[in-house]
Amino acid sequence: MILDHSIMQKAEVLIEALPYIQRFNRKTIVVKYGGSAMVDEELKKQVIQDVVLLKLVGFKPIIVHGGGKEISRWVEKTGMEPHFVNGLRVTDEATMEIAEMVLNRVNKSLVQLVNELGVKAVGISGKDGMMLKCQKRYSNGEDIGFVGDITAVDTQIINDLLEKDFLPIICPVGFDEDFKTYNINADDAACAIATAMEAEKLAFLTDVEGVYRDFQDKDSLISEMSIEEAQEFVSGGTLGGGMLPKLQNCIDAMNHGVSRVHIMDGRIPHCLLLEIFTNRGIGTAIVSPGEERFYHAE
Amino acid sequence: MILDHSIMQKAEVLIEALPYIQRFNRKTIVVKYGGSAMVDEELKKQVIQDVVLLKLVGFKPIIVHGGGKEISRWVEKTGMEPHFVNGLRVTDEATMEIAEMVLNRVNKSLVQLVNELGVKAVGISGKDGMMLKCQKRYSNGEDIGFVGDITAVDTQIINDLLEKDFLPIICPVGFDEDFKTYNINADDAACAIATAMEAEKLAFLTDVEGVYRDFQDKDSLISEMSIEEAQEFVSGGTLGGGMLPKLQNCIDAMNHGVSRVHIMDGRIPHCLLLEIFTNRGIGTAIVSPGEERFYHAE
Amino acid sequence: MILDHSIMQKAEVLIEALPYIQRFNRKTIVVKYGGSAMVDEELKKQVIQDVVLLKLVGFKPIIVHGGGKEISRWVEKTGMEPHFVNGLRVTDEATMEIAEMVLNRVNKSLVQLVNELGVKAVGISGKDGMMLKCQKRYSNGEDIGFVGDITAVDTQIINDLLEKDFLPIICPVGFDEDFKTYNINADDAACAIATAMEAEKLAFLTDVEGVYRDFQDKDSLISEMSIEEAQEFVSGGTLGGGMLPKLQNCIDAMNHGVSRVHIMDGRIPHCLLLEIFTNRGIGTAIVSPGEERFYHAE
Amino acid sequence: MILDHSIMQKAEVLIEALPYIQRFNRKTIVVKYGGSAMVDEELKKQVIQDVVLLKLVGFKPIIVHGGGKEISRWVEKTGMEPHFVNGLRVTDEATMEIAEMVLNRVNKSLVQLVNELGVKAVGISGKDGMMLKCQKRYSNGEDIGFVGDITAVDTQIINDLLEKDFLPIICPVGFDEDFKTYNINADDAACAIATAMEAEKLAFLTDVEGVYRDFQDKDSLISEMSIEEAQEFVSGGTLGGGMLPKLQNCIDAMNHGVSRVHIMDGRIPHCLLLEIFTNRGIGTAIVSPGEERFYHAE
Amino acid sequence: MILDHSIMQKAEVLIEALPYIQRFNRKTIVVKYGGSAMVDEELKKQVIQDVVLLKLVGFKPIIVHGGGKEISRWVEKTGMEPHFVNGLRVTDEATMEIAEMVLNRVNKSLVQLVNELGVKAVGISGKDGMMLKCQKRYSNGEDIGFVGDITAVDTQIINDLLEKDFLPIICPVGFDEDFKTYNINADDAACAIATAMEAEKLAFLTDVEGVYRDFQDKDSLISEMSIEEAQEFVSGGTLGGGMLPKLQNCIDAMNHGVSRVHIMDGRIPHCLLLEIFTNRGIGTAIVSPGEERFYHAE
Amino acid sequence: MILDHSIMQKAEVLIEALPYIQRFNRKTIVVKYGGSAMVDEELKKQVIQDVVLLKLVGFKPIIVHGGGKEISRWVEKTGMEPHFVNGLRVTDEATMEIAEMVLNRVNKSLVQLVNELGVKAVGISGKDGMMLKCQKRYSNGEDIGFVGDITAVDTQIINDLLEKDFLPIICPVGFDEDFKTYNINADDAACAIATAMEAEKLAFLTDVEGVYRDFQDKDSLISEMSIEEAQEFVSGGTLGGGMLPKLQNCIDAMNHGVSRVHIMDGRIPHCLLLEIFTNRGIGTAIVSPGEERFYHAE
Repeated sequence: MILDHSIMQKAEVLIEALPYIQRFNRKTIVVKYGGSAMVDEELKKQVIQDVVLLKLVGFKPIIVHGGGKEISRWVEKTGMEPHFVNGLRVTDEATMEIAEMVLNRVNKSLVQLVNELGVKAVGISGKDGMMLKCQKRYSNGEDIGFVGDITAVDTQIINDLLEKDFLPIICPVGFDEDFKTYNINADDAACAIATAMEAEKLAFLTDVEGVYRDFQDKDSLISEMSIEEAQEFVSGGTLGGGMLPKLQNCIDAMNHGVSRVHIMDGRIPHCLLLEIFTNRGIGTAIVSPGEERFYHAE
Repeated sequence: MILDHSIMQKAEVLIEALPYIQRFNRKTIVVKYGGSAMVDEELKKQVIQDVVLLKLVGFKPIIVHGGGKEISRWVEKTGMEPHFVNGLRVTDEATMEIAEMVLNRVNKSLVQLVNELGVKAVGISGKDGMMLKCQKRYSNGEDIGFVGDITAVDTQIINDLLEKDFLPIICPVGFDEDFKTYNINADDAACAIATAMEAEKLAFLTDVEGVYRDFQDKDSLISEMSIEEAQEFVSGGTLGGGMLPKLQNCIDAMNHGVSRVHIMDGRIPHCLLLEIFTNRGIGTAIVSPGEERFYHAE
Repeated sequence: MILDHSIMQKAEVLIEALPYIQRFNRKTIVVKYGGSAMVDEELKKQVIQDVVLLKLVGFKPIIVHGGGKEISRWVEKTGMEPHFVNGLRVTDEATMEIAEMVLNRVNKSLVQLVNELGVKAVGISGKDGMMLKCQKRYSNGEDIGFVGDITAVDTQIINDLLEKDFLPIICPVGFDEDFKTYNINADDAACAIATAMEAEKLAFLTDVEGVYRDFQDKDSLISEMSIEEAQEFVSGGTLGGGMLPKLQNCIDAMNHGVSRVHIMDGRIPHCLLLEIFTNRGIGTAIVSPGEERFYHAE
Repeated sequence: MILDHSIMQKAEVLIEALPYIQRFNRKTIVVKYGGSAMVDEELKKQVIQDVVLLKLVGFKPIIVHGGGKEISRWVEKTGMEPHFVNGLRVTDEATMEIAEMVLNRVNKSLVQLVNELGVKAVGISGKDGMMLKCQKRYSNGEDIGFVGDITAVDTQIINDLLEKDFLPIICPVGFDEDFKTYNINADDAACAIATAMEAEKLAFLTDVEGVYRDFQDKDSLISEMSIEEAQEFVSGGTLGGGMLPKLQNCIDAMNHGVSRVHIMDGRIPHCLLLEIFTNRGIGTAIVSPGEERFYHAE
Repeated sequence: MILDHSIMQKAEVLIEALPYIQRFNRKTIVVKYGGSAMVDEELKKQVIQDVVLLKLVGFKPIIVHGGGKEISRWVEKTGMEPHFVNGLRVTDEATMEIAEMVLNRVNKSLVQLVNELGVKAVGISGKDGMMLKCQKRYSNGEDIGFVGDITAVDTQIINDLLEKDFLPIICPVGFDEDFKTYNINADDAACAIATAMEAEKLAFLTDVEGVYRDFQDKDSLISEMSIEEAQEFVSGGTLGGGMLPKLQNCIDAMNHGVSRVHIMDGRIPHCLLLEIFTNRGIGTAIVSPGEERFYHAE
Repeated sequence: MILDHSIMQKAEVLIEALPYIQRFNRKTIVVKYGGSAMVDEELKKQVIQDVVLLKLVGFKPIIVHGGGKEISRWVEKTGMEPHFVNGLRVTDEATMEIAEMVLNRVNKSLVQLVNELGVKAVGISGKDGMMLKCQKRYSNGEDIGFVGDITAVDTQIINDLLEKDFLPIICPVGFDEDFKTYNINADDAACAIATAMEAEKLAFLTDVEGVYRDFQDKDSLISEMSIEEAQEFVSGGTLGGGMLPKLQNCIDAMNHGVSRVHIMDGRIPHCLLLEIFTNRGIGTAIVSPGEERFYHAE
């Protein structure tokens, strides 16, 4: 029996994954799931496959997701009038109501996709188990409605679900001390949860390739940087719009116990898998001081 | 120091509760929550207080709820055209989408109310932990869309949440073998869950006083009946509309391990508490053979 | 179905208890049981009901009791000659023998009363599990026999009984390093046990209403005081006889981890229950610094 | 270094004990403690040493004891008038009160002796943990007061104490369904407890050498017999007074799971130890069918 | 960032493995390791990599190995005279001594190779924890020395090592009731252990491609057969030498709870991995009745 | 029944053992087994009996053994040429191979002897569970081959075996960071393991009576010394050959948590037992500061 070349390569790929499986065994990995990877059905299926594989080989993945364009679609559908303050959409009570409905439905549809692959998921919001406590966020002092900043994370429900071998899928809705409902930025929620869980890794699925040294120059993608370098970028003011708060969030998370943050391009099929299981680095990694990069982008 | 009469009565009420607390200690109680008690804010608050008290004194309550009039309100709001088959509303994909959104939001608002009283609740649907498996229900052979009959209950997630001391709140959404989403009748879900959990008690909060011997005669309320008597009612065909399937469900549940079913009037403030903790029986109890009624309606 | 006024009040009383149940859930409460409440059969029954209710709603009560007038009765009955030193009764070997017999019998009769209400009690003395280690107490340097001061509390047996869901009932008999038997003041034993168990609450059932600001003026009952105030009372020297050492004991217990001490009138039916479950404060509470009183005497 | 003969013999004795230690490792052994061994201070000390050794080498001994002559001494001391029915002493309420006091004091003094050797004992009566449930015993139809026959043994408290590594010491006081207090024959209690615990061995410390084939002939001591032989003795009617019910009790215990019963002479120093740890059998053993005698009397 | 074709194939290989990882999660897999795969250093390394990967992704692999040609080499080296009975080598005491030495050294060298990949292995023989009890095997009634047939497997030590997350590596040396040492055929040992552990899978690494329908025709390799077909082969008498007892052993194992046996060619690099993680079947699988083949040879 | 003198002495011996059993209950005792006690079959049997008895009465013994004269015998048998450096035998690869084979076989034969007495042993080397990590030892800078110094002890496998009630038997083979195999001095291994396990006692079975104050004077045997005295001996330079490194090792072990080291004469039958269970001290004890000798040599 002669095995062809391709079948032997399969074995090599699996063997190549061995040290990575070992490295992250029983480690917590928070995946911020959003952007195109949440819209494109094929990409969505692949992200779920990746996370399920992480679970099956012994990691403890946690998905934190936003509602993407679904919220806007439903706000529109119900004919609500948008309000703006300082150019920011105001989350009034009616909008919050829709946002919560949509986020929870997205949540359950992700649960379903994971279940379909044979792994039991449980979808929760920040209200469940009193997980995400918030306070009102103001935009330059102006009231923008029910938008919250996380003030405390009660990890009990997450830890209990992980202990019982479920895959937790979390949507970023919280509550304040008067038990009012708040919308939370999904990036913020992912950072706060990764920090509270002392996650080994926090991975952002975004719609950019990673962080560029020069935003104009697509060849200047940084494959790895230290916290200090990341801090310089933030201070330097050369970073493009959405990346600035995300990077600051990452730095904060790493200063509070997260070992490694990864900003990767969710548009690449199986980006999560490739990043973790092969020696082909994807996107931009921010690494803790003293920890050499375990695998390198080519 | 002379204590007035009223303060001593307080003590008596608490002492009166003692044997009931003892009887249900660590027992599972499924509460089907619906009807007026879900609309009236004051009643809602009281139901939640009652369930929280049950939890705190050592019972294991589980809430199963429907979406009540909220689903209709949102269907209307989004301008959808209702379809009917045999006079029954068809749950097409769009309706199912709304129903799932609404049910999950109602779910989280109940979670919030429980949390507010200092007990940690976790809201889940039948998708979470692959809890409620369904198959399509047909109405006289006609397709009425995504309405499901439960074929299997995986109690793992419920048991795990109870073990970790959370109060589970469940909305009746399930999935079939193709992982499509289905709406489930909340009464059916409560019965199936009570049966699978081998609950000690299944309590229905309804908008009627209980079961009447003669539907016309409000004085003919039955405070207690055996399974056999309940079966006779069902067979006799004298029962009013909604009560028939509910009663059949109850009988089935009791034939599969539930010890006692209670149909009570959710419009009575603290009806759950009064039924369980005082010697004043409320509504209609169906009791297992050989088990004498522990407490009696006056 | 119209419910009368009284039945609704029952619900209110139960709901009123909710925050107190929550507050003491799984907390240890040491009840020093003595005085009239131990002689009057009706009061005795009520104290036991109260403690059983505390157990059933999730607290961890421990009863510490004395032998009251029973010891004197039996000393007399056996025709022993009393000896006195400095006006104090000397506990010679024969008296100690009777005291131990009587205390253990009282102990078992309390066990029986608790059992009767369906909760399993276990009665132990300070010898069991080597719980209460003592040294001889001298009265102004004079030997008064087998009266002991506790030098160490081995809480293993108490913790094990609580873990296994028994209600421990303890009589104050100890042993010294030569394994001789000693009588211990029940107040002292309760304080030492509450301290060693880091109890949340230590409640004394006494034959006075509480602590008076002015012993002569029955209107000067203090409903709450801080440790500092209690210390001032002790130092001030205005306190009546038995209260002085009791108060000093309480202060010591609170300085070693007990959160709250309560001196209440055991002659009030269900005083324990009323104190803990209603907003009607009974007797005098000494509270830890920085902890506001959770409920107030009216 | 030349070791003398005696020191080498010590090693041999210890090695000789090895198979017996192995055989009874983690097995339950109920010791009925009574008779002379309870009166003679030297014998008492030796019995306690033996039981403590059993505990330390991995057995699970349980002591069940009577009150011996102490009860009579105290009844006399308090000047009570004895009542008799059919020649049997009637246990009226006053006698029961004394008996309970005395038994509990004896119980605690045994606890103390065990403690003194560094092993933690816990003394309980049949009331503790609702262990020994009784019904009134009648003597030929006549009421003889509070003398009880055990109807149920709740082993929870015994198992819990053993699990927590305490040595349980039990005095034979029980309760009936009205929670009245009853005196129980200590032999009966030992048999009932050994049966309920499915003890490996039940050892009676008595004041006779064992069972004689011919009561008159001291050379006819039986070192081992089967259940059948024991039954024949009982039926044969040749047995002396106290031995008859004891033997019937033993047979019952063995028919309900106890593997071996041993009737031995408590007047022999360390009889328990010698019987269990050496190849020198002591007294009379009744063995289960099919089980050859593991060690033999010489 | 454009990813080349090869990197995407890596992801596909990992995703392809997903259902297999899921299927065998926490399942026990016994690997009989022998033949060329034990001699060739490169193959040896690959087998170990495969088993370590199985361990890391959640399986519970157990290695059972022989001594291969090493035993012969050492017998020769020490200049021993071989004895034969019926053409079979007799395992006299001196040979047994060498065999045990060699087997244990091979055992520890496999332990080392596993350790080197970061997974903790523990090497044991059938003597450890009294695992493999034997009786003497006779060859047509003739004594062939210390060759044993397994009569009982005590799985405690294997289960304990698996529970503590070690990878057990077992060499086939056993003991009889006189605690004499015996050599056991490694195939027999693997079958007995797989049976006792109720393994999901038993994989033989051999030096043949699998079972041929016609031993002469290399194209007649059978990729899958039922127990019945396997039994026919054994009865048919057309099977080549070593395969006959192996097949009979497999059938026995499957009749006692092993779900699937696999005879594969250990000379194929990563054959274990390919067989389990890809849809490319290798060698011959014998499957339980009613269980369709999960993956197919191409 | 009159018991003769000798039988009573048996009881006394067992009772004499009581405080020692108590003292070492659940304590870890490392026994370095070597010398004559490993060659003489009768002595060997007695050592194993002693260790098994220790296990059965609740201690946690661990055996660490060398290969004694067996290694030399096999080296000779295979006709290898010995190499020497500085007068020390060089452990080249071929010698290491034999040493490992022999040590593991000795290991399994000890396992067998323990098993035979009914206690389950598990034999492991320092490779198992990555227990003994080494680095190459040089003799005055010269390479003497695969002789290792322990740099780290991973106690997981030892603790797991003890937890599961096995008796661990360890042979001193280790591995370096390149996973090469090393021979370790058995005394060193015993010290390192006792230290890592924080053993209560470390006992060396040697071929000398103990430590002499004056090596020439057999009457100058020291029965007990402090760490300081031992240190003086080592520094003093008056100690005979093999004793010097052994003593230094002992001192190191005691400086790192071992409470007591015992050097005893393995040629005395049951020396271990006599030392531990009788008041007859054997050999030389080195005791921790402040700890008086618990038992004394006569």
